[in-house]
Amino acid sequence: MNALPAMQGLWLDSRLLSFRDDLPVPTPPPGEALIRVRCVGVCSTDLELLKGYYLYSGIPGHEFVGQVEQAMGAEHWLGRRVVGEIGAACGRCSACLGGRKNHCEGRTVLGIVNRHGAMAEWLALPVENLHAVPENLPDEAAVFAEPLAAALRIQEQRPIGRGEQVLVVGAGKLGNLVAQSLGPTGCDLLVIGRHSENLDLLARRGIRTGTAEALPERSMDVVVECTGNPAGIALARRAVRPGGTVVLKSTYRGEASLDLSGLVVDEVTLLGSRCGPFTPALDLLARKEVEVASLIHARYPLREGKEAFAHAARPGVLKVLLYA
Amino acid sequence: MNALPAMQGLWLDSRLLSFRDDLPVPTPPPGEALIRVRCVGVCSTDLELLKGYYLYSGIPGHEFVGQVEQAMGAEHWLGRRVVGEIGAACGRCSACLGGRKNHCEGRTVLGIVNRHGAMAEWLALPVENLHAVPENLPDEAAVFAEPLAAALRIQEQRPIGRGEQVLVVGAGKLGNLVAQSLGPTGCDLLVIGRHSENLDLLARRGIRTGTAEALPERSMDVVVECTGNPAGIALARRAVRPGGTVVLKSTYRGEASLDLSGLVVDEVTLLGSRCGPFTPALDLLARKEVEVASLIHARYPLREGKEAFAHAARPGVLKVLLYA
Repeated sequence: MNALPAMQGLWLDSRLLSFRDDLPVPTPPPGEALIRVRCVGVCSTDLELLKGYYLYSGIPGHEFVGQVEQAMGAEHWLGRRVVGEIGAACGRCSACLGGRKNHCEGRTVLGIVNRHGAMAEWLALPVENLHAVPENLPDEAAVFAEPLAAALRIQEQRPIGRGEQVLVVGAGKLGNLVAQSLGPTGCDLLVIGRHSENLDLLARRGIRTGTAEALPERSMDVVVECTGNPAGIALARRAVRPGGTVVLKSTYRGEASLDLSGLVVDEVTLLGSRCGPFTPALDLLARKEVEVASLIHARYPLREGKEAFAHAARPGVLKVLLYA
Repeated sequence: MNALPAMQGLWLDSRLLSFRDDLPVPTPPPGEALIRVRCVGVCSTDLELLKGYYLYSGIPGHEFVGQVEQAMGAEHWLGRRVVGEIGAACGRCSACLGGRKNHCEGRTVLGIVNRHGAMAEWLALPVENLHAVPENLPDEAAVFAEPLAAALRIQEQRPIGRGEQVLVVGAGKLGNLVAQSLGPTGCDLLVIGRHSENLDLLARRGIRTGTAEALPERSMDVVVECTGNPAGIALARRAVRPGGTVVLKSTYRGEASLDLSGLVVDEVTLLGSRCGPFTPALDLLARKEVEVASLIHARYPLREGKEAFAHAARPGVLKVLLYA
């Protein structure tokens, strides 16, 4: 009898991250593919998991590009380069049957909820979650498909019209992608952030930028909160016009205090927004309408995962990538 | 030279309410009518003003029925019985010019912001705010036009479809009207509240009721928070389904703590909702589709205003009316 195959990867447990070489290679259940990981991004959610935002122990990571190595009954996927939607729905609950699989109450989420993630040599994911990466799209662009899809989710929930006044609070990883994703809408866009280098990246794309000192007051139709901290929501609340919408995109540990009566008087909408559509995300990346190369601040091998996380957590740092 | 005319009324100042007989009779500026007050309701907002929710000193009261006594240039209003929208817009700011007069930043609000209210013998209000009361509608029904309009505002912001699962949290003054206003939508309605007598009022109208122990979890399409306290928002948050909407209707002093990341993950919408359309409110009252007689718990003369407020503040008490 052979020893069970083992693989290298990162392991998160009780707020401790470690590199291990004894992780079991996943055995995909029916309907799932085995994917060799080519590249993984470190997301703010990963950093929050490490801080204990959410109880999770297992392999982290959900922004990946990989190659399909097994796909029983779906052999046309074999050898293809893919990205993947991170939530796997049960297919049987009322949300699933009601056409809202993204809100399946029994879902697992790659590297976040009850499903090992992508910071390892292999991962398993339902075939129905996969999206083929266009040939001309390099791994280091395709790895942004998941966060860019999340940015595009905003427009599914609150269509943005030409000329609308839109403010993005935060010019980090998510804020940058949200801002770029809004370009095609023709909205009147402003991004405020703290790190001049990150604002410069956007300014070079023709996007108007500023700091919190220049915050517009009570005038923006839509404000997207991308800072990942409670101060961001306070800025967003100040900037939105009465009757306007604040889109919440960041998840972080802890509660925020909010003047709910003010929301009533000003009839403000707070809109929680999570994962989004991969197809238009891949399309924007392939057409280079969203530029991501300049967002990559560092690359690490998996075995230096702790250093990679520490680097990603430094103020102003954008995307850190991991390679097996 | 004659003495300036004086009138009786209530006066709110530094959280003190007093009856006075030396208040100046309003002199309506151009475009405004002088209205003899026939009947005023005590609203939870009035009680909150007394607690200091908002800095206001002046005559309180905004739910009124009156009779027009002066209306320069709009003489067709003379002698008519009216109710009135409570916000008076400046007509010049960007909100006004953008068609959002209800969010005019310079607005005055009857008995709430920079404009003397209805708890006196006379009030002044712009002619454009007035709505004629149908002849068959008694004062004690018409006085509910303003809060019922606020209840109907919900459907302007978030249309409610037949069969949708809707929960109203709170069976007080506002919760009752919100619940009744939802009847024509054909939604699947549940109201939870604390006071069995108030729940019984709704049950007698064929509306399903229960207590917080029977709170549905993560399953309601729309939840309307009408309790006026932070515990209500916690219940609303528990009951709404992922992707659903929590409508905030109550204003009260202080902030509430909220898990914003949970809103993101569940993609919940929080929707602040304030004043609404008078025409359909008067119509529902005239057609007796909304029943309000049983909501009237007490009547007081103006000079017993303090007792009226104290009565209205007692747990479970619904509408208290004041008469000059």
